[in-house]
Amino acid sequence: MEEKRNIRLLVEYDGTSYHGFQVQEDTSLPTIQGELEAAITTICGESIRITGSGRTDAGAHALGQVVNFHTSASVPTGRFPIALNSVLPRDIRIRQAESVPLSFHARFDATAKTYLYVVDNRPYSSAFLRNYVYHVPQPLDIAAIKAAAELLVGTMDYASFQSSGSSVKTSVRTVYHLGVDPKGGVIRFSIRANGFLYNMVRNIVGTLLEVGKGKLTIEEIPAILAAHDRSQAGPTAPAQGLYLVAVEYDNTAEQRDK
Amino acid sequence: MEEKRNIRLLVEYDGTSYHGFQVQEDTSLPTIQGELEAAITTICGESIRITGSGRTDAGAHALGQVVNFHTSASVPTGRFPIALNSVLPRDIRIRQAESVPLSFHARFDATAKTYLYVVDNRPYSSAFLRNYVYHVPQPLDIAAIKAAAELLVGTMDYASFQSSGSSVKTSVRTVYHLGVDPKGGVIRFSIRANGFLYNMVRNIVGTLLEVGKGKLTIEEIPAILAAHDRSQAGPTAPAQGLYLVAVEYDNTAEQRDK
Repeated sequence: MEEKRNIRLLVEYDGTSYHGFQVQEDTSLPTIQGELEAAITTICGESIRITGSGRTDAGAHALGQVVNFHTSASVPTGRFPIALNSVLPRDIRIRQAESVPLSFHARFDATAKTYLYVVDNRPYSSAFLRNYVYHVPQPLDIAAIKAAAELLVGTMDYASFQSSGSSVKTSVRTVYHLGVDPKGGVIRFSIRANGFLYNMVRNIVGTLLEVGKGKLTIEEIPAILAAHDRSQAGPTAPAQGLYLVAVEYDNTAEQRDK
Repeated sequence: MEEKRNIRLLVEYDGTSYHGFQVQEDTSLPTIQGELEAAITTICGESIRITGSGRTDAGAHALGQVVNFHTSASVPTGRFPIALNSVLPRDIRIRQAESVPLSFHARFDATAKTYLYVVDNRPYSSAFLRNYVYHVPQPLDIAAIKAAAELLVGTMDYASFQSSGSSVKTSVRTVYHLGVDPKGGVIRFSIRANGFLYNMVRNIVGTLLEVGKGKLTIEEIPAILAAHDRSQAGPTAPAQGLYLVAVEYDNTAEQRDK
């Protein structure tokens, strides 16, 4: 029997074909977690449950999701990417594997996350990007979007940008950065925060797009925040434009273990 | 009754879900031509057959396929893109429509075509690019590939790069340009010629990759060309890396009509 190890994986996935990250009650629905657990179970030769840094929505994507699992299997840590990629569906790829302290927990130890949201603002939609961007053909006022975005950076109560269906103790979060980067007709929203409420990125982007279309003014943003009322903000932008880019951890877990 | 018009469309498609451009004998198989004809028939209110500049393989893509069709419908030419895109599957998009002389023929009048072939040369395959590139993880000698590519430019008999299954009078073609552009681990092959033999781009790329891997030498290229024998060249690179980028027409058709 090998010593128990805690393996951390960096995972990229195209969420188009999946009902989100988390295993569903109806286990016949394909999920990222379900595929990962099946593959890891195959490679390790023992039943494995994984912990993800958090859920992602049906149709949303990840460039750098982080998961961890405990195993007694003798598979060398460095072999996990090739071994798992050989049995995983091609729209889920393991980019990296490392052995971390046994106490490491992909969700509880996350200190920050970064999401990307991609809007295709060109007149015609692309045959290739239909599952990877939100196509908004109307002209958008980028300067207004940027100004409104600045008002959403800081430590605030983001209750107006939280969809119902989650129970969290507080809706106060710290958004460290909210970048708006237009290039070649495509607008990339980049958001880094210490945590995200349910649908927070999609609700922020949906609201900023209303500002870009002139349906909301920059001046209304503080009132929307102050209302703590989801109905005051803009609509939820669709999932297919959303990417979990990175999850950050400080060294607390490692220190705890040593 | 409206006057008969000849409409030329510029079409972009993601070929992943299709059995190639051309309608198959088994008409239950989805094809690009089949989808286009169904959509145009719906919008024009009359049964329409289209002419494409040429076939594309199952799983291959187009950024700029050209088709034309004759119609008596009263739809304004400029309305065709929006009208057709509203009924077409989202992986087929009309980028442009114009009225051309009645004599214009998308295949016979084409004077040159440009194809792009994309190789992902990074160690791990991407979850997002699986249907859009050919993943070759081995290190490739780019300088050797570029040198071999230069030997394939010119007016020559490309019989060694023609897959069986087509009947053409001559296998002599003129390749005007064969670019090899590596960037960020992705290699883009760009080929412009006055015409292409069956699988010619995929066979050229498959051969150049053998040179890149050191399985063929630059010195062997002239002998491969001289052999006029498909078995002497490298394997056929897979369809999903291939894109029809542009079809060129001179003004012969227009002149004929005036």
